[in-house]
Amino acid sequence: MFDSSTICAISTPAGTGGIAVIRLSGVDAVRIADQVFHSPVAGKKLSVQAANTLHFGSILKGTETLDEVVVGLFRSPHSYTGEDVVEISCHGSLFVQQQILQLLIDQGAELAQPGEFTQRAFLNGKMDLSQAEAVADVIASGNSAAHRVAMNQMRGGFSIEIKLLRDQLLHFITLVELELDFSEEDVEFADRSHLIALSRKVESLIRKLTDSFRQGNVIKNGVPVAIVGETNVGKSTLLNALLNEEKAIVSDIHGTTRDVIEDVINLNGVLFRFFDTAGLRVTTEPIERMGIERSYRKLEQASIVLLVLDLTSSFDSIVGRMDEIRKMITTQKLILVANKSDLASRKILNDLAGIRLSKNESMVFIAAKSKENLAALVQEMHSAVSWEKIQPEDVIVTNIRHYEALTKALESIERTIAGLQSGISGEFLSQDIRECLYYLGAITGQITTDEVLGNIFKHFCIGK
Amino acid sequence: MFDSSTICAISTPAGTGGIAVIRLSGVDAVRIADQVFHSPVAGKKLSVQAANTLHFGSILKGTETLDEVVVGLFRSPHSYTGEDVVEISCHGSLFVQQQILQLLIDQGAELAQPGEFTQRAFLNGKMDLSQAEAVADVIASGNSAAHRVAMNQMRGGFSIEIKLLRDQLLHFITLVELELDFSEEDVEFADRSHLIALSRKVESLIRKLTDSFRQGNVIKNGVPVAIVGETNVGKSTLLNALLNEEKAIVSDIHGTTRDVIEDVINLNGVLFRFFDTAGLRVTTEPIERMGIERSYRKLEQASIVLLVLDLTSSFDSIVGRMDEIRKMITTQKLILVANKSDLASRKILNDLAGIRLSKNESMVFIAAKSKENLAALVQEMHSAVSWEKIQPEDVIVTNIRHYEALTKALESIERTIAGLQSGISGEFLSQDIRECLYYLGAITGQITTDEVLGNIFKHFCIGK
Repeated sequence: MFDSSTICAISTPAGTGGIAVIRLSGVDAVRIADQVFHSPVAGKKLSVQAANTLHFGSILKGTETLDEVVVGLFRSPHSYTGEDVVEISCHGSLFVQQQILQLLIDQGAELAQPGEFTQRAFLNGKMDLSQAEAVADVIASGNSAAHRVAMNQMRGGFSIEIKLLRDQLLHFITLVELELDFSEEDVEFADRSHLIALSRKVESLIRKLTDSFRQGNVIKNGVPVAIVGETNVGKSTLLNALLNEEKAIVSDIHGTTRDVIEDVINLNGVLFRFFDTAGLRVTTEPIERMGIERSYRKLEQASIVLLVLDLTSSFDSIVGRMDEIRKMITTQKLILVANKSDLASRKILNDLAGIRLSKNESMVFIAAKSKENLAALVQEMHSAVSWEKIQPEDVIVTNIRHYEALTKALESIERTIAGLQSGISGEFLSQDIRECLYYLGAITGQITTDEVLGNIFKHFCIGK
Repeated sequence: MFDSSTICAISTPAGTGGIAVIRLSGVDAVRIADQVFHSPVAGKKLSVQAANTLHFGSILKGTETLDEVVVGLFRSPHSYTGEDVVEISCHGSLFVQQQILQLLIDQGAELAQPGEFTQRAFLNGKMDLSQAEAVADVIASGNSAAHRVAMNQMRGGFSIEIKLLRDQLLHFITLVELELDFSEEDVEFADRSHLIALSRKVESLIRKLTDSFRQGNVIKNGVPVAIVGETNVGKSTLLNALLNEEKAIVSDIHGTTRDVIEDVINLNGVLFRFFDTAGLRVTTEPIERMGIERSYRKLEQASIVLLVLDLTSSFDSIVGRMDEIRKMITTQKLILVANKSDLASRKILNDLAGIRLSKNESMVFIAAKSKENLAALVQEMHSAVSWEKIQPEDVIVTNIRHYEALTKALESIERTIAGLQSGISGEFLSQDIRECLYYLGAITGQITTDEVLGNIFKHFCIGK
């Protein structure tokens, strides 16, 4: 599994900038760097320099200076990959980046595969598999909740929970398998009632993790928000206005935190995923009904329902619309978005203010077109998102691979408990526990295959 | 002019990647970094670390770990800006980059203006102004010729030429102004014939530089290529086929060397700027004539004219077309692009092969649609570009500001020569030479204003 090749890649974002960093990792990293790096100090070689040092010089292609660079030197095992690593900080021109990369390849380095630096870090024991996966999540995270969860996982928080579970099960299986060795003597080292208690504890811990996935998924992909309302009440205007509300954290910084996926909007650090459920209303028409059922399922998936109301329409129609939607609400937060408040009559404003709201409901008066009072709406949406209060140390499952492995582990531990209760033989008991251990080990990479690794790292960017 | 503030910016290209680098520069750079950087080695502070070293640790926002980073430490004056510099290499997530940047700003750093790091390098004497300008050119250069010229300028090649010119003129003016001090005695320290010879030498050197600007401009902006031909002969097909020919230097690398400007195509490392001169034909119609004159001027600006011919049309019409265009050619290279060769009759191929070509002409048979023989066409275009042979040490003016200053300097030295020939007084002579010195000094920044600096650096990217 270990690789003797030396890999290289541009590690900084693709494109032109002030500087770019090209990373070399492997047994020949320093030797290859020395072949192209030329220090102004005559005869100075990187190979005899101390670890964790920076060196100014030129990158030469034959006698031509390709660039003036600063080279950072890391020595195995004290590097990101655990191998010798050289980082070349060059001018951020695409041409220069590609020329230097080509030069390194000409000198024997290989172009790194996506995530190969992190994969080597995993293979060299610098991090476990769930930590390696978290590296990609840290890079992809676009809001503070996603970032916190990913950082915690990258720093090993999740791995520690899994390790605790495995340790308890290992103790368990040792006793059970010891019995098997002495099976002719019919001894029972493992107290069955004690084992059931332990299994229940493991089950409850795994369930806590699998349960966190719903939350984790929301953190990673955005809080699902259904926008409901008849046509022309201002749904699109509202969405566009919210898109404009979205601010980069430092306004002058290049780039934007906005997600590429349409209608995923980062509002004050929380990701919301908006979807329109046009056509959601009560009807008996069979064909229309199908469309409505689809919309209804979408509405069920939402955490927040925004019902956009047009204050220039009649009070009766507004209340009728509200009552229709209220019937469909179960656990979702319902925000009544009273739009066009600037055009509304005093009477309708008074009438609406008198409507009684349940604990799960709130009303906000806005004017989407002139962007009035949007901050209040965003505030309401934030207050519906309890997980924004998650702490840096909270362990939350965000990865579908982990979720699936945990679900399988949960099934095994449930079978174990059932087996213990029905008094099945040690062989079967051992098999169930081994299965549970297998799935837990798959998460941290103690048990893995090339295929699993390939699937994980192919989603990384090149250069990480 | 010197600044006591500490500036920070994301120096790597905008976007998400494996890693990103945030740069801090100024008197408080290390102190600010120490406030947010936390080493796993208890009590370790950057402020007491040696220069040119790398340190692993975390960036803390309060008690929360924002990221795990590697910090590079540079000490004044041995840094890019000449000030204390800290480079924070973090995970390449937009969120992380912005959070760290915000944190540094909260700790008292200021967001750097475009090019402010390089501006400080200039103000602190790390490079002269023409070198600083070349930094932006190095970053922007998309082909080897542009890169070579910019690298040479950044490394001081251009500055050395200018300095040699100024030194000669300074020697000259010293003698002339010495005469002024002794004006009552009517001495002549400076041998006038010697002075004329020296001025002529300076004039010839400046002229060499201004002449190089045409070449420099082409290197920077692409070789102008006029595509001529009637409609439906395959001009667009040819352009699209050439766009496909364009290859990134290493095929697997993210990003592409292709220019954003339409129809600027990098073919095997040389930038070509294509423009269509539709409607270019002989006519006596007055209104049509205006359009043709415009096209004609475009054709005059071209270095290469591609006349696309349709081999499925009649030999007479092809020859007629050729003769029309030949009349308009002066110094340009004319390439007869015989298109649709796959559909052509044997007879027309034979007839065309018999056409006599002048030294400045060549003919290439292609099939643009099936991309046949495009390599031969590219080869022909390359052979027309003599400057591809430029050497890394060649001094070529690519900057319009330098060109304008050199043009002014040239005018002054020409006035000086005329003055010497007509025997004008030392005062006027001195004034002309001072003017020439001023314009030469403006190039390297020995003479400059805030406005000039502002204009230069505002075109830089933030973070450089």
